[in-house]
Amino acid sequence: MSTAAALIIGDEILSGKIRDQNTHTLAQLLFEQGVDLMRVVVIPDDIPTIVDELRKLSSQYTYVFTSGGIGPTHDDKTYEAVSKAFERPLKLHEQALSRLVENMQNYPDRTLTEARKRMALLPTPCEIIWTPGLWVPLVVVGNVFVLPGIPAYFTSMLEAARSHLVGTPKHRIQIYTHMSEGDIAEGLDATQTKYADVAIGSYPRVNDGSYMVMVSIEGRDRVQVQQAAEEIERATKGYR
Amino acid sequence: MSTAAALIIGDEILSGKIRDQNTHTLAQLLFEQGVDLMRVVVIPDDIPTIVDELRKLSSQYTYVFTSGGIGPTHDDKTYEAVSKAFERPLKLHEQALSRLVENMQNYPDRTLTEARKRMALLPTPCEIIWTPGLWVPLVVVGNVFVLPGIPAYFTSMLEAARSHLVGTPKHRIQIYTHMSEGDIAEGLDATQTKYADVAIGSYPRVNDGSYMVMVSIEGRDRVQVQQAAEEIERATKGYR
Repeated sequence: MSTAAALIIGDEILSGKIRDQNTHTLAQLLFEQGVDLMRVVVIPDDIPTIVDELRKLSSQYTYVFTSGGIGPTHDDKTYEAVSKAFERPLKLHEQALSRLVENMQNYPDRTLTEARKRMALLPTPCEIIWTPGLWVPLVVVGNVFVLPGIPAYFTSMLEAARSHLVGTPKHRIQIYTHMSEGDIAEGLDATQTKYADVAIGSYPRVNDGSYMVMVSIEGRDRVQVQQAAEEIERATKGYR
Repeated sequence: MSTAAALIIGDEILSGKIRDQNTHTLAQLLFEQGVDLMRVVVIPDDIPTIVDELRKLSSQYTYVFTSGGIGPTHDDKTYEAVSKAFERPLKLHEQALSRLVENMQNYPDRTLTEARKRMALLPTPCEIIWTPGLWVPLVVVGNVFVLPGIPAYFTSMLEAARSHLVGTPKHRIQIYTHMSEGDIAEGLDATQTKYADVAIGSYPRVNDGSYMVMVSIEGRDRVQVQQAAEEIERATKGYR
């Protein structure tokens, strides 16, 4: 079974300035790939904290995804932390630099500042996944995929990495019911006990008349998921 | 300095079915209270994992907030995990039960099922913060605040807890500039070095013409924040 963890690096999320969007994007793509996302950790822009989490997560999960901290400013510390965590010195990456310089030709007023050059100073050795239409490298060190915090870039670069992420897809059926959680709980519990390899989740909706509860049935065995779903559909007078 | 951590309990977030909204709500309220949110962890509905994280976070931060898992169904495991983590046996809480029963009078077709009663089986002893207009208890065990996953309830119950959360407020100034990160990085770095107690963050905007970068200046010393902001405003030709 392939598992994954996400490390969201960002003072801006912890201090409430910016709402993290990348966790949801990652969770959806990993579900599609059949990789189980097991943990998400949000931490500040602090190198010792990042190093510590990178090492822990990298040793425990099949894939680790970081978000944030790869820009040109002083608060971008992720490459340095990856470098320290896995003892891969920061070196100027020629191909990344030449793509950066090429990209700069779209902005005639920009010059190759030392700050911009930092974005091509990568933990070495590393693999790189290139995203069509973007100069920015997706750096891969071992099982760690280093992604940017900007949601549009995160999304397209993660899409470029999709084929590298191999899991066993799950089947999911969602049942909607007008009954309340307190009235369907006993039935759900009985079905859950019967189908131990299927994950049954119950999610009440508040302030919306269209349904009371959404019940999700997930698992890798299609037949079991279908059987459990049919049982729940009957017991909750639900619909799909 | 008061610090905090959040423990978001939910298979539904990790599998991409539901987008977490509570982290952002919590981050904003804690910033207003002057409490530093240092870590957010998202984990599955798994009791040993919840117990382990509860103990770790509770020992490391001033306040811990959990989100999710306090409903009546089999996948609601947070009270049981809190009970195990802090050796507080689950007992029927008379006041919570009577409020639950009173609330049920609004729904004449509902009966007091064993499942519903579970929502009044609380880690004991505990403190409770009651939210105006809601029967649901906000259970507090030591420094752990147990909140529901449903965003509307999370928000109003957290608001009810606000006066219990005591910190030292920060000052924040945000500067917007039409210059790009690569061109302002050197100046920001110099200002950051000069004002070590101020946190300067740089957040590029993509696909929006209104500005290129938002620079945030935060700290507990108002004068330092103002001085650093003025320096950055000049260096980036920025505006507030």
